[in-house]
Amino acid sequence: MLVTVCRTEHFNAAHRLYNPAWDDERNQRVFGKCNNPNYHGHNYKLTVRLTGDIDPETGYVYDLKRLSDLIKQEVLDRYDHRNLNLDTEEFRTLNPTAENIAVVIWQRLRPHLDKGLALSVTLYETDRNFVEYHG
Amino acid sequence: MLVTVCRTEHFNAAHRLYNPAWDDERNQRVFGKCNNPNYHGHNYKLTVRLTGDIDPETGYVYDLKRLSDLIKQEVLDRYDHRNLNLDTEEFRTLNPTAENIAVVIWQRLRPHLDKGLALSVTLYETDRNFVEYHG
Amino acid sequence: MLVTVCRTEHFNAAHRLYNPAWDDERNQRVFGKCNNPNYHGHNYKLTVRLTGDIDPETGYVYDLKRLSDLIKQEVLDRYDHRNLNLDTEEFRTLNPTAENIAVVIWQRLRPHLDKGLALSVTLYETDRNFVEYHG
Amino acid sequence: MLVTVCRTEHFNAAHRLYNPAWDDERNQRVFGKCNNPNYHGHNYKLTVRLTGDIDPETGYVYDLKRLSDLIKQEVLDRYDHRNLNLDTEEFRTLNPTAENIAVVIWQRLRPHLDKGLALSVTLYETDRNFVEYHG
Amino acid sequence: MLVTVCRTEHFNAAHRLYNPAWDDERNQRVFGKCNNPNYHGHNYKLTVRLTGDIDPETGYVYDLKRLSDLIKQEVLDRYDHRNLNLDTEEFRTLNPTAENIAVVIWQRLRPHLDKGLALSVTLYETDRNFVEYHG
Amino acid sequence: MLVTVCRTEHFNAAHRLYNPAWDDERNQRVFGKCNNPNYHGHNYKLTVRLTGDIDPETGYVYDLKRLSDLIKQEVLDRYDHRNLNLDTEEFRTLNPTAENIAVVIWQRLRPHLDKGLALSVTLYETDRNFVEYHG
Repeated sequence: MLVTVCRTEHFNAAHRLYNPAWDDERNQRVFGKCNNPNYHGHNYKLTVRLTGDIDPETGYVYDLKRLSDLIKQEVLDRYDHRNLNLDTEEFRTLNPTAENIAVVIWQRLRPHLDKGLALSVTLYETDRNFVEYHG
Repeated sequence: MLVTVCRTEHFNAAHRLYNPAWDDERNQRVFGKCNNPNYHGHNYKLTVRLTGDIDPETGYVYDLKRLSDLIKQEVLDRYDHRNLNLDTEEFRTLNPTAENIAVVIWQRLRPHLDKGLALSVTLYETDRNFVEYHG
Repeated sequence: MLVTVCRTEHFNAAHRLYNPAWDDERNQRVFGKCNNPNYHGHNYKLTVRLTGDIDPETGYVYDLKRLSDLIKQEVLDRYDHRNLNLDTEEFRTLNPTAENIAVVIWQRLRPHLDKGLALSVTLYETDRNFVEYHG
Repeated sequence: MLVTVCRTEHFNAAHRLYNPAWDDERNQRVFGKCNNPNYHGHNYKLTVRLTGDIDPETGYVYDLKRLSDLIKQEVLDRYDHRNLNLDTEEFRTLNPTAENIAVVIWQRLRPHLDKGLALSVTLYETDRNFVEYHG
Repeated sequence: MLVTVCRTEHFNAAHRLYNPAWDDERNQRVFGKCNNPNYHGHNYKLTVRLTGDIDPETGYVYDLKRLSDLIKQEVLDRYDHRNLNLDTEEFRTLNPTAENIAVVIWQRLRPHLDKGLALSVTLYETDRNFVEYHG
Repeated sequence: MLVTVCRTEHFNAAHRLYNPAWDDERNQRVFGKCNNPNYHGHNYKLTVRLTGDIDPETGYVYDLKRLSDLIKQEVLDRYDHRNLNLDTEEFRTLNPTAENIAVVIWQRLRPHLDKGLALSVTLYETDRNFVEYHG
């Protein structure tokens, strides 16, 4: 009886998209206004999904308060009110596209979760642009 | 040509989380403020998904008006403006976590639907906490 | 240069509507399913608005972090995950309609705010039913 | 490392549901108010999902600006502020149910996308009624 | 102690904008794609606000169930799943802009409400385009 | 017959809050994480309201397409995908709090609008934090 439990959190961060191996003209052509050297920013919305069995004693697949605490520790404390390019190790060299941020968040959360739990993350950069990663 | 059709409905209910096999201290430690003996409540949002073939005559997989009526009969008429622990048979002994409510709703809807239709339910307890069950 | 600053918070509570001066039949007729003796509940959404001058040193009318803390202290710590009829003094005798809850919240917040600030509150019982009080 | 990227767009259109092979009475009985001969309309919300590998040079699965342009060209330029039954070839004979519209949109987008990309579309007719098609 | 109570309802309708006193070219220039002769449509969202005193016996300014019924009778039963230009008397000659629809709705509701209640309506044509009328 | 017409737009920008007349310790104490020297960012949502008479020829108070164009020219072209502190003249010395941004936007729009139209702006920094300015 597999059930998926989901928790949504938010963080506000600055970033810019660019590839250091390219010259400015190519970065500008590929990434457009997202390449602005002085950064822009987003209210990121993150939904984390865990799929597993219901514990018959608690009726929980995973305590969502605990999941919220884990997301806070691994994601919000690192990215909220930060500049992803300048203030984090992981995006100093890796381009902070929504795709890459979602994969990095998944990789940060995975080791803290029991292997019996499937993990997926959805990251909304805006209401209209979002990505999903299932590992 | 499998298509999924989805209908969202709402119900407002009171509940509390607790395990009658545990003492008060353990219930409080595990369920925290959700264990309040006098109950709290939620605006539950329910999305029901049916996957099947499009009927070439109607262009419908399933008439969403009929699905709405079925959800009303099986879910809203039982849970809306009720206390899940006190006013329903199913949650008198089963802890009304979002996980368990989703499974019970799925089980209540399943017998009313043709076997050729796959069924899943998503239940939002709040905008930030929700669960999915696919049977 | 008057500006209004707004902060939204949420709390989840159980309640029932009834007038102790009326008999059951009249309570049922007037309040319908909201009169259920075993309570039902809501995800209440609260928006608090303060109107005043911008402080030229901070650029703030009022620090929204401080406003969030004040709402937590005066509203969420009292009502979140509670039964409004049973767990609070103010709604033991006062019917906890959205109107009355909004007025009580306004009255609880007002003494903590400078007289130069105008205060209003909006309380959403559901997405479709909400009330506003300006004092 | 498969990631899904999603883009949401909107279009506003008129339509009516009916089956030309049926008489008026049967059309009215099956489609109810959606059968109104003078049409009604919706703000359609469309989410297009593409699943594929992250390009290591860009960090993109697919540039969402390009996806937005493709949706504009294939969907919005044809359906936005139009009458689906009268102003389009595809729904002159095919009943413009949400199911059929979603399938047609999928079929219009598919030839423009690399075969390595999986495509799915979600079409919201209202906040409460929506459909998904994965091909 | 004046409180405002608010109720939101929805209706889906077709319309087109045009001025019969103008030629086609001018209608097209002024109203653009909203002038499409075959109509387009919207999911209209309507919020009705009533401001008055709280009745001390009920704790209500106005029973929102009764307000919902009134909106159904005066607005939804006339406009939902209709073509505003063809299926209603009021917009046969009056251009069904959001502004005019809001004023007409206000005028239809006003006679049914006690003079002591202030009335305002907000009409959303889309999430991004909406109008307010206070009488 | 005064009606208010409203248009919502979005822009994504980086910013930080600080007062150059204060030392780092005081900036940090007052602005907290919003003071991060490397900036953070937001998806700003802006609603512009114009109140005036309905033009009997068009049925419009103000063409919302024209209002959208004006907001694009005066706000989005300057702030979208920019760093408010570094990339704009107006916030090089003025602290880019939501209050100050709303006032500046109002001041930028006002000269382009007829004096008979009342103007107000609402600026959402997040879903939970927003400000309103009426001039």
